[in-house]
Amino acid sequence: MPKYVLTFQYDGTNYVGWQVQPKDASVQKTCQEVLETVLRQKADLTGAGRTDSGVHALAQTAHIEVDTPLDLYRFKSSMNGLLPDDVRLLSVEEKPEDFHARYSAKGKIYRYHIALKGKESLFKRKYQWVLPYREFDVEKLKQGAKRLLGEHDFKGFASENHRGAASYDSIRTMKRLDIEEGEELILTFEADGFLYKMVRNLVGTLVDVGRGYFPPERIAEVLETGDRKLAGQAAPAHGLFLVKVLY
Amino acid sequence: MPKYVLTFQYDGTNYVGWQVQPKDASVQKTCQEVLETVLRQKADLTGAGRTDSGVHALAQTAHIEVDTPLDLYRFKSSMNGLLPDDVRLLSVEEKPEDFHARYSAKGKIYRYHIALKGKESLFKRKYQWVLPYREFDVEKLKQGAKRLLGEHDFKGFASENHRGAASYDSIRTMKRLDIEEGEELILTFEADGFLYKMVRNLVGTLVDVGRGYFPPERIAEVLETGDRKLAGQAAPAHGLFLVKVLY
Repeated sequence: MPKYVLTFQYDGTNYVGWQVQPKDASVQKTCQEVLETVLRQKADLTGAGRTDSGVHALAQTAHIEVDTPLDLYRFKSSMNGLLPDDVRLLSVEEKPEDFHARYSAKGKIYRYHIALKGKESLFKRKYQWVLPYREFDVEKLKQGAKRLLGEHDFKGFASENHRGAASYDSIRTMKRLDIEEGEELILTFEADGFLYKMVRNLVGTLVDVGRGYFPPERIAEVLETGDRKLAGQAAPAHGLFLVKVLY
Repeated sequence: MPKYVLTFQYDGTNYVGWQVQPKDASVQKTCQEVLETVLRQKADLTGAGRTDSGVHALAQTAHIEVDTPLDLYRFKSSMNGLLPDDVRLLSVEEKPEDFHARYSAKGKIYRYHIALKGKESLFKRKYQWVLPYREFDVEKLKQGAKRLLGEHDFKGFASENHRGAASYDSIRTMKRLDIEEGEELILTFEADGFLYKMVRNLVGTLVDVGRGYFPPERIAEVLETGDRKLAGQAAPAHGLFLVKVLY
């Protein structure tokens, strides 16, 4: 059966996240309904991974298997004609049969947008976390961030519902952590994988370092002890973007 | 009576424009209700001018007169605490008694955001006009735009409901028209005043020049003849921002 990878962009504001939930509007459900209308058949849309409620995606990938080959140009136009204006199909591409949106992924890139107090934009209010702190030391945040690079057990930065499983492997490699300072403070994380709420927990803790509530060394301490209680609160969902799934 | 100038920023998406309308939510009405709650008295908010339904403002100004002097810091905090998240009071400043938000204005700056086909951003969909044209010649648009600089009778670029009045003075001076090309095409207009829907009519006509539907000379023709029928359709409201009122 022909297999395709679909790349979607979405504004997560009005969704409970990627994954299908029984009652609420999820991005996956929205895309799947349009997909079935376009294909005129039942179809399973298998995503690279979930994004939480309110999280956005510049490029989320998912695969489908269909009975007959697609006319890619027409398929894309039909999909975008029917999708709501906060979800867009960026591309569709044929893939070999052994491709799997989730299992073939080699890593992911996430980006988090922060506005320091007084630098917030009303027009970006759904896409940035506005910090309430008068004083904020970006250099300290950077010192803390450096400690995240490389291979670590990130379980201290994972949220509850995954840490329970004893067999759960929480070792990940942070390959890149770029920090851009402009109108916004933008943190870009690239890793071979991310634990549940890991980026938001990392950002929340790094912000606690920047505002002077934790010393930069706290980051290493959380990594070493795996103690979630030593880390900060999760940063809000609406500042987070899934930038890309790497294959 | 102490007089103050208030500078508001707003996302016009959910409003019928600045001006109070009997039934619908206008920005002025929203601001005035919050103002009366904060001041605990009736207050008139006199704007520098109206913005149309769906048009945004980086900085719209309005004045008020009050019985007793304001504590500016507390006033601003109280206002922003009560305003919805798509309207923000940027500043409040005392003014001499003869200041008038509309009559003291020396000019205005407007900005229009265009995305060429394929360069649109889902996350800016409420703030940019996405052109459907495969071919678009920005150089031609620039040639047309040059003709707008200086003093002209702009009545060919004004919409109906103002052109009726015989006494209506439609001569304006376009002091600046900057065109920036990046991810978006951004047109910045500065004039001593603007006629009703003038910016949107100018942008619509300039886009018709860029897409090759009109020659660049059409701009001069509309200025010379004052014939609205020679100009293009008004560009959509959601790409337009009132940047600043000049005093």
